[in-house]
Amino acid sequence: MWQLYQFPLCPFSRKVRLTMAEKGIAVELVRVSPWLDDDDFADLTPAKQTPVLVEASKGIVLIDSTAIAEYFEETVDRAPMIPGTAPNRAEIRRLVSWFDIKLYQDAVAPLMHERMLKRLITREPPDAQALRRAMTAIDSHLDYLDYLLDHRRWLAGPVLTLADLAAAAQLSVADYLGGIDWRGHKQTVDWYAVMKSRPSFRPLLGERMEVIMPPAHYDKPDF
Amino acid sequence: MWQLYQFPLCPFSRKVRLTMAEKGIAVELVRVSPWLDDDDFADLTPAKQTPVLVEASKGIVLIDSTAIAEYFEETVDRAPMIPGTAPNRAEIRRLVSWFDIKLYQDAVAPLMHERMLKRLITREPPDAQALRRAMTAIDSHLDYLDYLLDHRRWLAGPVLTLADLAAAAQLSVADYLGGIDWRGHKQTVDWYAVMKSRPSFRPLLGERMEVIMPPAHYDKPDF
Repeated sequence: MWQLYQFPLCPFSRKVRLTMAEKGIAVELVRVSPWLDDDDFADLTPAKQTPVLVEASKGIVLIDSTAIAEYFEETVDRAPMIPGTAPNRAEIRRLVSWFDIKLYQDAVAPLMHERMLKRLITREPPDAQALRRAMTAIDSHLDYLDYLLDHRRWLAGPVLTLADLAAAAQLSVADYLGGIDWRGHKQTVDWYAVMKSRPSFRPLLGERMEVIMPPAHYDKPDF
Repeated sequence: MWQLYQFPLCPFSRKVRLTMAEKGIAVELVRVSPWLDDDDFADLTPAKQTPVLVEASKGIVLIDSTAIAEYFEETVDRAPMIPGTAPNRAEIRRLVSWFDIKLYQDAVAPLMHERMLKRLITREPPDAQALRRAMTAIDSHLDYLDYLLDHRRWLAGPVLTLADLAAAAQLSVADYLGGIDWRGHKQTVDWYAVMKSRPSFRPLLGERMEVIMPPAHYDKPDF
């Protein structure tokens, strides 16, 4: 069976879990804390980044959430997450890169640093200015999602794709960390409510990171 | 014909140019300066990032270097750049993400900021400490390339792949900006010398960015 090395608030591990759940692939979770010096995990991946996905019986080790998503797209026909023509697939991949890189760097990574890593490691209080910058960044990312959803049923077009899973994975971590003010983003709220109701999403919403509690609305489909 | 919106020192545009050249796809270059407020370019891509690839006669606009590389991998059989089994392809994609995200953020982006953007926009002198950090980061990335090349003929295995193009694109920009000390990295030097000699690479090495000159060894295959 596949083993996923991850921690509950890793947005890229969430993207992999959503992809595997949508495709009906069983996976066993292995909890790691990449911010600690864990030699076993470092042996598995010198980059010391989650997610890492292992199929020991086949000797397969997969690293990088996009490489993993493309792997299952190629090997599992069920529930295609990068469907359509070559230009459709390019549009899905454009959005996945945008959420994985820009949404993560502008907003999710700073929130994780201020509200998760500082809490777990240095015990410093969060930097209010960094938090404000992150929440302002999220707000403009939500404006862009609203814009996409004004023209499309799902983020990349008429069907659910990896772009929806990548965006929901990032936003779910930001929301857990209290970094999202949903007011004024009805299109994105409606889309995210549907994402939250999917069977693939429910297990993630039930998990908690030690010592850090999410806001009350976090796991409610209507919020 | 395809039109690529780019500037000479954009590592992601270089990755696309190398991919198209290896596959023998003609492309016309359109020079843009994303750091200026160019409304036409902003209309094309709200993210205001290069590369953007346009086929006006077909109404196709492709954004994001990885989405573009995957697009040509799917639509052009010649010179496959993501070849092999699903695990082989996952390894190529893992390395492409590593070079596009980590090598770029740790080293190439700071070098571009200190030695290109400051020169073109603010005219400030580069920050010596930031330059040192970037060059130290490049050195450990070169150590990792040396390690890969101790075990493999090319970065991802026995054949040239998108991983080699992505790494060479990033390193070529860092080298143009005088950010690489090649001493002590024989494996990577030998690999990069071969990359520089490829017909796909020669045109890039001949181009110059206004007011910024590369070191003498920059375009020499033996350096």
